Amino acid sequence: MNDLRFAVVGLGYWGPNLARNLVGLAGAELAVLCDERPGALEPLLARYPATRGTTEYERVVADPDVDVVAIATPIGTHYALAHAALEAGKHVFVEKPLAASLEEAEKLVRLAAKRGLVLMPGHTFLYSPPVQLVKELITSGELGDIYFISTSRVNLGLHQSDASVVWDLGPHDFSILQYWLGEAPSHVTALSRGCVIPGTPDVAFVNVEYGSGVIAHVELAWLAPSKLRRTTVVGSRKMVVYDDTSGEPVRVFDSGVTIRDPDSFGEFQLSYRTGDIVSPRVDASEPLSIELADLCDAIRTGTAPRSSDAIGLDVVRVVVAAERSLRGGGIRTPVEASGTSVSAT
Amino acid sequence: MNDLRFAVVGLGYWGPNLARNLVGLAGAELAVLCDERPGALEPLLARYPATRGTTEYERVVADPDVDVVAIATPIGTHYALAHAALEAGKHVFVEKPLAASLEEAEKLVRLAAKRGLVLMPGHTFLYSPPVQLVKELITSGELGDIYFISTSRVNLGLHQSDASVVWDLGPHDFSILQYWLGEAPSHVTALSRGCVIPGTPDVAFVNVEYGSGVIAHVELAWLAPSKLRRTTVVGSRKMVVYDDTSGEPVRVFDSGVTIRDPDSFGEFQLSYRTGDIVSPRVDASEPLSIELADLCDAIRTGTAPRSSDAIGLDVVRVVVAAERSLRGGGIRTPVEASGTSVSAT
Amino acid sequence: MNDLRFAVVGLGYWGPNLARNLVGLAGAELAVLCDERPGALEPLLARYPATRGTTEYERVVADPDVDVVAIATPIGTHYALAHAALEAGKHVFVEKPLAASLEEAEKLVRLAAKRGLVLMPGHTFLYSPPVQLVKELITSGELGDIYFISTSRVNLGLHQSDASVVWDLGPHDFSILQYWLGEAPSHVTALSRGCVIPGTPDVAFVNVEYGSGVIAHVELAWLAPSKLRRTTVVGSRKMVVYDDTSGEPVRVFDSGVTIRDPDSFGEFQLSYRTGDIVSPRVDASEPLSIELADLCDAIRTGTAPRSSDAIGLDVVRVVVAAERSLRGGGIRTPVEASGTSVSAT
Amino acid sequence: MNDLRFAVVGLGYWGPNLARNLVGLAGAELAVLCDERPGALEPLLARYPATRGTTEYERVVADPDVDVVAIATPIGTHYALAHAALEAGKHVFVEKPLAASLEEAEKLVRLAAKRGLVLMPGHTFLYSPPVQLVKELITSGELGDIYFISTSRVNLGLHQSDASVVWDLGPHDFSILQYWLGEAPSHVTALSRGCVIPGTPDVAFVNVEYGSGVIAHVELAWLAPSKLRRTTVVGSRKMVVYDDTSGEPVRVFDSGVTIRDPDSFGEFQLSYRTGDIVSPRVDASEPLSIELADLCDAIRTGTAPRSSDAIGLDVVRVVVAAERSLRGGGIRTPVEASGTSVSAT
Repeated sequence: MNDLRFAVVGLGYWGPNLARNLVGLAGAELAVLCDERPGALEPLLARYPATRGTTEYERVVADPDVDVVAIATPIGTHYALAHAALEAGKHVFVEKPLAASLEEAEKLVRLAAKRGLVLMPGHTFLYSPPVQLVKELITSGELGDIYFISTSRVNLGLHQSDASVVWDLGPHDFSILQYWLGEAPSHVTALSRGCVIPGTPDVAFVNVEYGSGVIAHVELAWLAPSKLRRTTVVGSRKMVVYDDTSGEPVRVFDSGVTIRDPDSFGEFQLSYRTGDIVSPRVDASEPLSIELADLCDAIRTGTAPRSSDAIGLDVVRVVVAAERSLRGGGIRTPVEASGTSVSAT
Repeated sequence: MNDLRFAVVGLGYWGPNLARNLVGLAGAELAVLCDERPGALEPLLARYPATRGTTEYERVVADPDVDVVAIATPIGTHYALAHAALEAGKHVFVEKPLAASLEEAEKLVRLAAKRGLVLMPGHTFLYSPPVQLVKELITSGELGDIYFISTSRVNLGLHQSDASVVWDLGPHDFSILQYWLGEAPSHVTALSRGCVIPGTPDVAFVNVEYGSGVIAHVELAWLAPSKLRRTTVVGSRKMVVYDDTSGEPVRVFDSGVTIRDPDSFGEFQLSYRTGDIVSPRVDASEPLSIELADLCDAIRTGTAPRSSDAIGLDVVRVVVAAERSLRGGGIRTPVEASGTSVSAT
Repeated sequence: MNDLRFAVVGLGYWGPNLARNLVGLAGAELAVLCDERPGALEPLLARYPATRGTTEYERVVADPDVDVVAIATPIGTHYALAHAALEAGKHVFVEKPLAASLEEAEKLVRLAAKRGLVLMPGHTFLYSPPVQLVKELITSGELGDIYFISTSRVNLGLHQSDASVVWDLGPHDFSILQYWLGEAPSHVTALSRGCVIPGTPDVAFVNVEYGSGVIAHVELAWLAPSKLRRTTVVGSRKMVVYDDTSGEPVRVFDSGVTIRDPDSFGEFQLSYRTGDIVSPRVDASEPLSIELADLCDAIRTGTAPRSSDAIGLDVVRVVVAAERSLRGGGIRTPVEASGTSVSAT
Repeated sequence: MNDLRFAVVGLGYWGPNLARNLVGLAGAELAVLCDERPGALEPLLARYPATRGTTEYERVVADPDVDVVAIATPIGTHYALAHAALEAGKHVFVEKPLAASLEEAEKLVRLAAKRGLVLMPGHTFLYSPPVQLVKELITSGELGDIYFISTSRVNLGLHQSDASVVWDLGPHDFSILQYWLGEAPSHVTALSRGCVIPGTPDVAFVNVEYGSGVIAHVELAWLAPSKLRRTTVVGSRKMVVYDDTSGEPVRVFDSGVTIRDPDSFGEFQLSYRTGDIVSPRVDASEPLSIELADLCDAIRTGTAPRSSDAIGLDVVRVVVAAERSLRGGGIRTPVEASGTSVSAT
């Protein structure tokens, strides 16, 4: 079986990580590096002497010795670059979010389906061992029915003058929630403020509803006294705290409330239970490495990767709905149903 | 100056704390204890031999040697008990919330005003030294303009089958926010779920908007892996974390973002600042003791206490609006303007 | 079976806790309260109207309706008071440490043995649920062989001008270590300094050796930036952190090092293991209540209580040896062998 | 002014960090890389194409185009390599500890002095910004007189079969303490155990005394449930906690005890003070970079670097005394006076 030959396009913050992981990945070859800035290209070519380099994306697309194009460029360019690669018959990995609008995202998904190619958005958190561990706790039934999820992703962090904190940070949580719950939200209600740059939301409170009855709250901010990556999952049997900044990223609380049958007067008898707390050992593997291996598997086997284009599309749907809620002054907004618009072609 | 003679009505969880603090308060006298259950009354009368006891509330109201009635009974009884006491010319202290509906609360406020009596809701957190310290940080301008506030008040806690978590825990945060910001919210949008008892919300995510532009998120839950009382106040100059469960309840972060004038191309130049973190020493006084002293002052001087009936009324307005948002399926709901309905009599 | 009739002597900080727990204890009766200061006596007599009071200890000793004398007076008085009670045929509970010198402690132990009475020192920590849980982890073999123990008991706390921090805080840790390990130390080496009051050690570092090979370090201080009650127990199979100030007072770490047989060149092959961390649920019972129940059982059944006079005597031996090490400028000092001096009578 | 030309010898764990920092350092040139293992040498030569490489140390010593030899090899080789370089007229940087015995360390110090060359041990922690900040708090008098220091450096970490945990971890703390206090210890008393490998101490409790009256405790272990790097410095005016693993590595507590003049009866009046806690912002510079710049300055100006050979020699003296205490069964052991043996040449 031949190695899959990758081109990495966009050598800013994330692209070099893609390159480094591809070099170490069995079954993959870092064939081409591409960035329109020679100053970004040269140091990496020096590090990887067996890799070709180009400042022209057209050459990547036209290169018959490239099987997969991995795109790590600004959001606004995702659509055009991914579209050209798919048209040229290349598999595509594109950093999250999949595209800058729902229409663009849908076009890419349709094109990939038509061509029989893998289109994989880079929702790397889905390959993070703690996220995977929580997924297993949910799937195995250990947590019972999921009641609600509350998550904070805040930091004194990078303001982007051309995108809101919802576009920047939201895809992380929206993809994780979808992976865990196995369903897309039905409605979102968002409140935000552009504290520093007028018109650019840098804090957002997003309430999320699911058809199953689960509710969630997602707090996103570029303004915060300290970094917080704390997610609480409350189930009917157990509860979990997932904290990406902690040495114990997953903590399982054997706590809950038991309700006994209401008596004849309609009174509920509740009993509270506080049991052991367990911090399971979590594997220290690098998520990006697992993600790229999953991409290779998906290409070889023709199955969808864990971070599928379907999830990527739904994430864009949620972001778009949240932005619409914000523009409407915080109104409750339906998330466009998955599948319908895609099948409408 | 004679001592103010208090009757404490309702000797469940909180009433005995009122009694204990009144006994130790200069200028106050614990004259009467009242509870319809002799079993609740007797142990306290044994502890305070100079205090009279009764199981009949009518006797308290009719007692010419009672100046103030302090009510610590279930919410549903607040209106009737407070109304009778005010009609009899007594000053009234009533546990939060002021009453079980906006109409009842407004009637009490009007009656107290007409009679020239003090009506004080027991928003004890307003007398908590950490809350007071944050108030001073805001008022002095040390935090700059307030951008947003995010707060979590969650616990594996007491489910009440006859009230939602919004009625139970919400008044704490709504009163603190109003005290800090000096304004009532304009709109609330709430999402909740009755996880354990169908129809009784035990988790709620409440987004709050203020006319000044400040936004807030209030998370309330009776279901949580661990107790959390964490409030973040983000200002333009500094940020504060207030955590009531910590040995350092107030932490001031000298952190922020500075925006320089946009250049000719509309680009914003931001610089991030991360400075010292200070945990100021916080006085360890018991809030309830300070609160009751403020009540005595208010009665003697004819001024409004910090926990005024105006704040108490606005808190009920916010709770009512949040409940209305919930019943409407999470719609954005205006908070009835302060003052209007009261002055409409 | 008649109730055991207790006299509580010394109504300062701890005596009222003894009284309160005795009142609630099945099989016990709070018969007499004694303090030479009428001002300390009267409020407690008011609270417990069925209890007799006296300011004269002679009356307690002479009282035929007293079965047990519980002594909570300053250390210097323990010997005289306990001796008189034992001579009068009363069982004796005495706050830790048992006495102010080894000679006094030994005399009390001999006297109690001769009279067939229970003499119980108040090492309350032995009844603390977290301490008991760690004891079970050790006894069951879950931790494997114990390698070493390191403990810090520091606080910005009460300086006593007439005793060192070793006499004040040391008995807590020395009793816990003895209970856990089931052996008394063989040697101690101590270093201390009287930082605030010249000649009164307020910080001490005590190295402790056991015949089994276990070593321990005990850090004691009245001067510290924050309260610390942290004990680490490292075993060959698992490790435990016991922190009395934490909501998770016992944490069990499934971590360790495995050594494989040295190869022919004498090289050791080590493999490190980092597994789950578990915070077992710990019962919230009040240790003093369990302790007094154990005292009653010991009296009725004629067996030694968990906090036995043998442990109390060994604790005094360790404190005395530590003080001797300090006076000798930090020399390594043997702990007088248990039993020998007692049997020498 | 010409660049100082460095040879880096030993390309295991630490050598590549030296190389990377030298490449980025103004006034320094990475001239030669040396390791007897070609497999360690080649990847670094590929990264630094302008640098020469050799597997023979003789060539480094003989190279007229090398000004400074930086040695990052196992402890046992320090003496021979550093000696040869000094004899050849090169300045020498050698990883801590300076040498494997006091005799060797003294010979190197004498040789460097005779030749007028800089000999710098790599006590990198002296260049860590938090350590430097604590040094300034002490020097400025903000902490008042230093009473005592307690430090824990424990981890589930690297067992070395040929050295004790005292040789491995001790130099970190002994160098920091000496830098902060400005004096070498007078006596050490150590207790240790070889828990995993018989005869190789993997836990040690070291009590340290200073002529000024300061006392310290140093806990070192390769066996621990979790990584701990916690140092408490207690002064007469303030206290500091330095925790290298925390996002707030230095915390200053404005707490203490004030003693008033004893009254006529010899009673001491103490008052406790608990004030603000401040976490000063700490610079995030890489210590190794600052250390190498200090080395270059020392060479150019002829002054001693902060991590001087005098400190390096005293650190070896303390380690040697601790080892002697251990071999003597935990006896109190004097630290050989600084300077005497060196001046004895």
